[in-house]
Amino acid sequence: MLNILTNHRTIRKYTSEKIDEQTMTELLDAACRASNTGNMQTYSIVVTTDEEKKKELAPCHFNQGMTTQAAAAVTFCVDFNRFNKWCEQRNAVPGYDNLLSFSSGLIDAIIAAQNFCVAAESKGLGICYLGTTTYTAKRIIEILNLPKFVVPVTTVTIGYPDETPNLENRLPLAGIVHYETYKDYTEKDIENIYKEKEALESTKQFIAENNKETLPQVFTDIRYNKQNNEHFSNELLQVLKEQGFMQ
Amino acid sequence: MLNILTNHRTIRKYTSEKIDEQTMTELLDAACRASNTGNMQTYSIVVTTDEEKKKELAPCHFNQGMTTQAAAAVTFCVDFNRFNKWCEQRNAVPGYDNLLSFSSGLIDAIIAAQNFCVAAESKGLGICYLGTTTYTAKRIIEILNLPKFVVPVTTVTIGYPDETPNLENRLPLAGIVHYETYKDYTEKDIENIYKEKEALESTKQFIAENNKETLPQVFTDIRYNKQNNEHFSNELLQVLKEQGFMQ
Repeated sequence: MLNILTNHRTIRKYTSEKIDEQTMTELLDAACRASNTGNMQTYSIVVTTDEEKKKELAPCHFNQGMTTQAAAAVTFCVDFNRFNKWCEQRNAVPGYDNLLSFSSGLIDAIIAAQNFCVAAESKGLGICYLGTTTYTAKRIIEILNLPKFVVPVTTVTIGYPDETPNLENRLPLAGIVHYETYKDYTEKDIENIYKEKEALESTKQFIAENNKETLPQVFTDIRYNKQNNEHFSNELLQVLKEQGFMQ
Repeated sequence: MLNILTNHRTIRKYTSEKIDEQTMTELLDAACRASNTGNMQTYSIVVTTDEEKKKELAPCHFNQGMTTQAAAAVTFCVDFNRFNKWCEQRNAVPGYDNLLSFSSGLIDAIIAAQNFCVAAESKGLGICYLGTTTYTAKRIIEILNLPKFVVPVTTVTIGYPDETPNLENRLPLAGIVHYETYKDYTEKDIENIYKEKEALESTKQFIAENNKETLPQVFTDIRYNKQNNEHFSNELLQVLKEQGFMQ
């Protein structure tokens, strides 16, 4: 069981095999059994399998092949629309048009998403998280018809694996875990934490392919650069306002 | 394996048994094997087992007994401090002082947290998520010595279970899952989705104990009321500014 977690690989290539209804239902059920705030379940899950709909979503995920190739693109959303409607039908006045409520809904949606992924991997399926969902939430809202008080926060592509990638490198646990309280990193700590990753042949290739001198430069100058981050931060803030969470 | 997920119960009472170092390391390793954005691992995990330190944290979690009774309180944090330091030591200029970066770090921290919880349950341990972490992040930052660019986003208490609670009710899947696109809820849909939950004897008791007429009123007037939500939203926004994520 622990093996399912420690052997996790992101799968970006899928066979054309569909996921049968019973299997998908089991995965969704596992997702919804996860912990959530006050058992309010303020999230929704949109399962997109239609080829045309997946094509429409693809640009939101920067046209990465997974979106259309996977059997399904599953979008996890913060959802206070359903809960608010229930409140209104029960003589209760909802007060969830704020950042705290959004953030608790976000946490619950992600916990459910990860249960979905673990369940999928336990059934031999492969998954890939698309971090692009928070970048392009505005357009996803249009495509998936999400009403006010609903915000997409992550998308998981899922299907039967058509590749067997190597296990990805991770930082040593000592670089991530603190005991009792946080011990800030010295210059030497940083050297130790990242040296194994930097020594990998794959890292050296990745730096060379990107015409950079160091691995952090690939992140700061290309993959996750300040200009894009600021642009998409503004878009995200705008979405939170429009969907009703910044009162 | 799927059973681990579908049999999940939140555990709020723990025996005095400690968690041995090897077991804790396995759980933390499972946490860090989870998917994360660009393999940047922009999160940290603070494991608090010291009795005095847990007592100090308890008020941050509204003095719920789990915080001190559990073998450990494990705080998952968005952490760009480590990553930024690495950038600076590698001639790269980080651009992660924004909402988008915080939100991707938050998603990654929660994915790791849920892997930690699933791993724990697979080993016979019990867990409880404390949603209070985002409410009182400012004070947790002081207690755990979190530097700028580090924000605690959830806390998991963990220990060996000293109770065997019933499985919690959940909304029917049809109330949570949408196919292809979102279908907004009619008044009748809402009635159907919540009727089973409302019919439970435990729900009726819960409403009566809280001197309310309907279940939503317990949420809107008492447990998650607008005034508190707005107060803690402002606190959270302040923390994001102070920790450097709202530039």
